[in-house]
Amino acid sequence: MDDIFAHMDARFEDHISRVRSFVSQPSISGEGAGMAEMAELVRDSIQRLGGTAEIVPTPGWPVVFGEVSVGAPRTLLLYGMYDVQPVEGEEWIAPPFAGDIVDLPEFGPSMVARGVYNTKGPLAGLFNVLESIQAVRGRLPVNLKFVVEGEEELSSRNLPGFIEAYKDRLGADATYFPFYSQNRDGKPVLWLGVKGIQYFEIACRGGAWGGPRTRGVHGCNAVWVGNPIWRMTRALATMMDDAEQIQIEGFYDDVVPPSAEDEALLQQLARTFDPANELWMWDTERFKYDLHGADLLRRYLYDPQLNIDGVLGGYTGPGMKTLLPHEVRVKMDVRLVPNMEPERVRQRIRDHLVKIGRDDFEVHFYEGYPAAKTNVSEHVVQSVIRSCRSLGAEPEIWPHVAGSAPLYLFSRVLNQPFATGGLGHGGRPHSPNEYATVEGMRLFERSVARFIYEFAGA
Amino acid sequence: MDDIFAHMDARFEDHISRVRSFVSQPSISGEGAGMAEMAELVRDSIQRLGGTAEIVPTPGWPVVFGEVSVGAPRTLLLYGMYDVQPVEGEEWIAPPFAGDIVDLPEFGPSMVARGVYNTKGPLAGLFNVLESIQAVRGRLPVNLKFVVEGEEELSSRNLPGFIEAYKDRLGADATYFPFYSQNRDGKPVLWLGVKGIQYFEIACRGGAWGGPRTRGVHGCNAVWVGNPIWRMTRALATMMDDAEQIQIEGFYDDVVPPSAEDEALLQQLARTFDPANELWMWDTERFKYDLHGADLLRRYLYDPQLNIDGVLGGYTGPGMKTLLPHEVRVKMDVRLVPNMEPERVRQRIRDHLVKIGRDDFEVHFYEGYPAAKTNVSEHVVQSVIRSCRSLGAEPEIWPHVAGSAPLYLFSRVLNQPFATGGLGHGGRPHSPNEYATVEGMRLFERSVARFIYEFAGA
Repeated sequence: MDDIFAHMDARFEDHISRVRSFVSQPSISGEGAGMAEMAELVRDSIQRLGGTAEIVPTPGWPVVFGEVSVGAPRTLLLYGMYDVQPVEGEEWIAPPFAGDIVDLPEFGPSMVARGVYNTKGPLAGLFNVLESIQAVRGRLPVNLKFVVEGEEELSSRNLPGFIEAYKDRLGADATYFPFYSQNRDGKPVLWLGVKGIQYFEIACRGGAWGGPRTRGVHGCNAVWVGNPIWRMTRALATMMDDAEQIQIEGFYDDVVPPSAEDEALLQQLARTFDPANELWMWDTERFKYDLHGADLLRRYLYDPQLNIDGVLGGYTGPGMKTLLPHEVRVKMDVRLVPNMEPERVRQRIRDHLVKIGRDDFEVHFYEGYPAAKTNVSEHVVQSVIRSCRSLGAEPEIWPHVAGSAPLYLFSRVLNQPFATGGLGHGGRPHSPNEYATVEGMRLFERSVARFIYEFAGA
Repeated sequence: MDDIFAHMDARFEDHISRVRSFVSQPSISGEGAGMAEMAELVRDSIQRLGGTAEIVPTPGWPVVFGEVSVGAPRTLLLYGMYDVQPVEGEEWIAPPFAGDIVDLPEFGPSMVARGVYNTKGPLAGLFNVLESIQAVRGRLPVNLKFVVEGEEELSSRNLPGFIEAYKDRLGADATYFPFYSQNRDGKPVLWLGVKGIQYFEIACRGGAWGGPRTRGVHGCNAVWVGNPIWRMTRALATMMDDAEQIQIEGFYDDVVPPSAEDEALLQQLARTFDPANELWMWDTERFKYDLHGADLLRRYLYDPQLNIDGVLGGYTGPGMKTLLPHEVRVKMDVRLVPNMEPERVRQRIRDHLVKIGRDDFEVHFYEGYPAAKTNVSEHVVQSVIRSCRSLGAEPEIWPHVAGSAPLYLFSRVLNQPFATGGLGHGGRPHSPNEYATVEGMRLFERSVARFIYEFAGA
């Protein structure tokens, strides 16, 4: 691979510029600005490889679909996303959509930008790699298909429709989702699956139960008129107890213990798993549970979660305002572990609200999806492992991770094994000062180049 | 009084303009803009009466103190406020600081503006009356003192200090707080007291208990890292049960039942009290309790309240963002009924948080104050009653109201009886589209002129 690595090193400044051009283009799917321009950037990148690409409309943001056919024996489907999380209300050390390189005390020169880690940095790096292979070797060793969606941060709500509609054109030997997978100590993390997710919003407004109907009123009336925030507070409190066990009836019914193979992976993982690194990454002093090793990991990976993402109601400005509010809104999500289905989760939440006498709450469910798994023995997974090892890094293998991605569409609907990863390091996804190290971007490109040749079997 | 009434009618357009000039000057004490200008407007109005007036600094917004000495036998202390509530996030049918006259379907021509009802409209009207009396009769029939504060909407946090410092100069036979007291049917409401208030904020942030410490992190970590919103939610839920009974230990210990005199007033009040009007005013379909007449009123007036004014935590923007937040903030208030003291209430809240294991919560108490009462037989109260009757309106007498004002400073510290009121109608205090009817402003001026002569005994 020395020829390709040398080529990439010589053009590294240009490669960084491409990452910058990706992150400089805002594309917050929850807000909308720049989404069309970002989709065009991705389409153009595929076309520059000599492939065909189209921006496929959906009821939400479009999917960029592309193909590069080179007559190779194997075909790889590249899954990615071009949208990012909002930055509203966050304080950043660099503008979130500029791509500034900041010398971070702990990591050295790093690009600080929304999406540089999750996941425009890897997406831009992937195109850098593919162009470099073409430049050095004349042609790619595999056929490629691209599915780059614009709603991953919105629970991929229209990706199922796209996959269904384009099913016949999505045939491939495997799916690959590129990602910076090294933690701060350089250890690459390879995960064989993801949790599913069901995001939802609930609102309580004044109505037949009481409470002001259309406007906040003078706060002294709270003594005899109901307050939607109290009503919501007590409703939420019925859902989770002090031991952090979810109290929604049947919520754990579909949860299954790890398979024997996953349990073995857990035991192996517990040997290298670094809880201190996790505490550091998530800026916390302690986990919820006084557990260690495989026991902590089992809880982390095989327990569903019920999270409150945000809550807003009444007067929240400076100083005091006495107000009896007329509404409160709460954003929540469930992370689904293997064997949980979104529809059943939605039904249990609805049933719980009825059971506690809150059928007046407005509930809006976003598109949900289930967990997904692949197998460590798959060729595509082994190709990732070999690419890491060839660069001196032994991957830590996780049965799956706690995060979500709609990989079930590839594993379950398209029936393809999948792999994720690549070298490189970044952090603070969904947080201020999301970053990726510059040196990690170089390692990422090398590992992806290697992976592609491993996968091609060449 | 015909000479004075005729004079006021002839100048009514100018009088309305004065109200407009008061409400057009923003003076949101919680935010700050315009407070100095508004204090000057009030000071100038007192000086135009030939009195002395000064803007007295406090650690917060200043108090306007003034005196008009005419050598009359009786002295009346006029209490008022020049600050108003915020309008942030509210939707108005007219600009909140313009003083537009809008023909409201139910009320006819009305000024729609922040503070026109609570309480710049009555304050401006008071000056209109006093100037009219001087113009027609040459001199006022009573000596006046003015205490017009700029922090009523901030719990009057620096008024106690002012009263203490100026105690020797505040001697008067009674205190009067002018207000539009007629409900939508024209019935004037005369209240003999107010509840006290203790406003406070509590916040939960990640720390030794767990939770992210300084920033929100990726939402998938909620499965193993604590969420401050859940922690706060469960804490709040311990404070109020489903029957809307406050569960803070000892909270009701100091609550006393109505005195025999108050109970008699309650029984009398129940005969004219119009619950439908209250439901309409507070935009609600039902009260919390299935009670009627004196039983409902007793609950309303003699129960303390624990209200959630607002709550904010995590992601509350459009669409979805999966986030494990690092903090949540809640604004709350207690309304104190007679015999409850703010310091004891604060201690019980602190004790409760310790008891439920939440001593990590940040708690900030604003200045609190107790309830205040006056007696129906007082000359100043009887003067208000006679002024209403002389204009054909029989007042409905309330032992006290559910709202708060720091009248204890006058009744308890200065040892003066007090009275409140005046004809006129307005509504939606602390809400969008606060209003007062133009015709009510005319009635207000007549009733205040009459009251002043009744009080003077002339």
